[in-house]
Amino acid sequence: MKRSIITGTGKFIPQQVRKNDEFFSHRFFSEKQQQIDIPTTVIAEKFRQITGIEERRYADPDMTASTMGFEAAKIAIADSGIDPETLDYIIVAHNYGDIKCGEMQSDTVPSLASRIKHQLGIRNPSCIAYDILFGCPGWLQGVIQADLFSKAGASYRSLVIGTETLSRVVDHHDRDSMIFADGSGACVMEWKDSTELGPGILATAVRSDTLRELDFIDFGPSYIPGSDSRHRYIKMKGRKVYEYAISQVPAAMKTCLDKSGLAIGDLKKIFIHQANEKMDEVIIKNFYALYSQPIIPENIMPMSIQWLGNSSVATIPTLFDLVRRNEIEHHHINEGDVLLFASVGAGMNINAVCYRY
Amino acid sequence: MKRSIITGTGKFIPQQVRKNDEFFSHRFFSEKQQQIDIPTTVIAEKFRQITGIEERRYADPDMTASTMGFEAAKIAIADSGIDPETLDYIIVAHNYGDIKCGEMQSDTVPSLASRIKHQLGIRNPSCIAYDILFGCPGWLQGVIQADLFSKAGASYRSLVIGTETLSRVVDHHDRDSMIFADGSGACVMEWKDSTELGPGILATAVRSDTLRELDFIDFGPSYIPGSDSRHRYIKMKGRKVYEYAISQVPAAMKTCLDKSGLAIGDLKKIFIHQANEKMDEVIIKNFYALYSQPIIPENIMPMSIQWLGNSSVATIPTLFDLVRRNEIEHHHINEGDVLLFASVGAGMNINAVCYRY
Repeated sequence: MKRSIITGTGKFIPQQVRKNDEFFSHRFFSEKQQQIDIPTTVIAEKFRQITGIEERRYADPDMTASTMGFEAAKIAIADSGIDPETLDYIIVAHNYGDIKCGEMQSDTVPSLASRIKHQLGIRNPSCIAYDILFGCPGWLQGVIQADLFSKAGASYRSLVIGTETLSRVVDHHDRDSMIFADGSGACVMEWKDSTELGPGILATAVRSDTLRELDFIDFGPSYIPGSDSRHRYIKMKGRKVYEYAISQVPAAMKTCLDKSGLAIGDLKKIFIHQANEKMDEVIIKNFYALYSQPIIPENIMPMSIQWLGNSSVATIPTLFDLVRRNEIEHHHINEGDVLLFASVGAGMNINAVCYRY
Repeated sequence: MKRSIITGTGKFIPQQVRKNDEFFSHRFFSEKQQQIDIPTTVIAEKFRQITGIEERRYADPDMTASTMGFEAAKIAIADSGIDPETLDYIIVAHNYGDIKCGEMQSDTVPSLASRIKHQLGIRNPSCIAYDILFGCPGWLQGVIQADLFSKAGASYRSLVIGTETLSRVVDHHDRDSMIFADGSGACVMEWKDSTELGPGILATAVRSDTLRELDFIDFGPSYIPGSDSRHRYIKMKGRKVYEYAISQVPAAMKTCLDKSGLAIGDLKKIFIHQANEKMDEVIIKNFYALYSQPIIPENIMPMSIQWLGNSSVATIPTLFDLVRRNEIEHHHINEGDVLLFASVGAGMNINAVCYRY
């Protein structure tokens, strides 16, 4: 039997570190444009307690989503050992395209996938390069699409990249600006011989909720009174996202794991979109509760949000690469380990992938 | 055997008509920011002779790419007779997202597919809604992806939409601004029983050329001297696009037709991306030449560019819908007719689909 196997990973972590205290001088306003009458030091500390974020990374001014994506892609290709000319697909997930530092326009023509293929110097015209927009779960959805293309007999090797510069769409007068970050992660996937207990993608699950949920994460004007309403920023209804995520993400994870035919006890690691530490902990708790397991296994969920923030599509591939390279304490994966990936974001969209390493 | 069959189509043609004479008052500059010392009446007439464009449509100020896409989608769904709750995928191709009239920011969060699913009132969370960016061939690539998802066993019904408001990214000081237009087209695809000589997708071909070709169509500042370089517009190296398209599009069309196992004489209609009338005529001529056929069959290529301009991802689904509804003189299709679709655009990307009606 053949399966989609991840044979290489790479990441690009921007060098610019922004600690929480750099937000102390900001003036924060509520959604209703009322100044928040709490000292920013208190706001930042409360923020840290909930989200777990202590610092985040911003791209250097001369970089964009596509140049970061190229850096991550290079490493993933080298890690896999493949000749990049043999790639059938380059799939790039993002949300805002390339936004130059200090500008407000998104640049998406040509696609970021075309730009990254160009930077990689790939000549092969049969290497199809396209972008997918699917909110934060975009990278994992790219993985699912690459798997489907292989199942359809149309692809043997894919490069799937998630890359985003959220620092360029944050409203400095919105407390949520402290959440968002920049980064990129990538993987090479190959359609290869496997066995019943061999490596590869075992099952996937996806859901799109767009009725009540459409504006939970969207684009809107600054919270500061008198701002130009034509200049918009990433906006999040945090409470609603939280309530949605803690019920629907565990359900999708269960759907995915159940499809794989494996048991909850088989899981060795869970890689969840890094949006909010508390939220991720509740997701895990609720997920295990669906299997009537009140006790969560130790070190089941590696986290990077404390020092990387939420870099959207980049969080899962970056986190996976960190663990593969033993760069997160107490988190190691071994051949045969069953992993679960899960993400949630704008759309609202949720997806999950069950994978044997 | 099962094949992907298009069971419904729809289009949205904006009501605002802009005739060539409306450009007479514009001041045009070259790429090198030099004013073009030719009367605009002469420029416009030369433009008409080459491109065939006499008028184009612009979206009303209160519409965006996603609201136009919704209008086309509604019609395609009604035409197919399906219950929209049974859709497995909503795939939306565009290049610039939703841009409000008079603004310069692209809005892509949530994805346009999420917005259209929302407007359609679809509750089903298993209906996966995502956007694809692949230049002008994006709609046809969405069709190819929907077909692959079906072949992989992951989809039975898809809605594929192409929607774009190029009027909101044109540089009024660039002659190419006369080319671009707004519009939307959509189709419903179903994975259904067919027979050897029955309907459905017979073959596809795709290529991405991103080395020399990356900047043939991209985003750049206005041609008028002294403009703000942070405000960018769609830009095209017309000559290079032309040279590329007239050699590579016929080759891709041949690859696709040959894959289907059919002969050149079996083709009844060819639907080509509406970018330039002269270019499309040369593409057809070169395509037939590849089969040593100096004579092009009469009425093989329906055209809409004369009155619709180039609306990017919307041109092919709109043209196909026009012909299906007998809205283009001398162009009718019947059950069993073999059709070829082909597109070319930013990336640069090219694709082709051979289809039995």
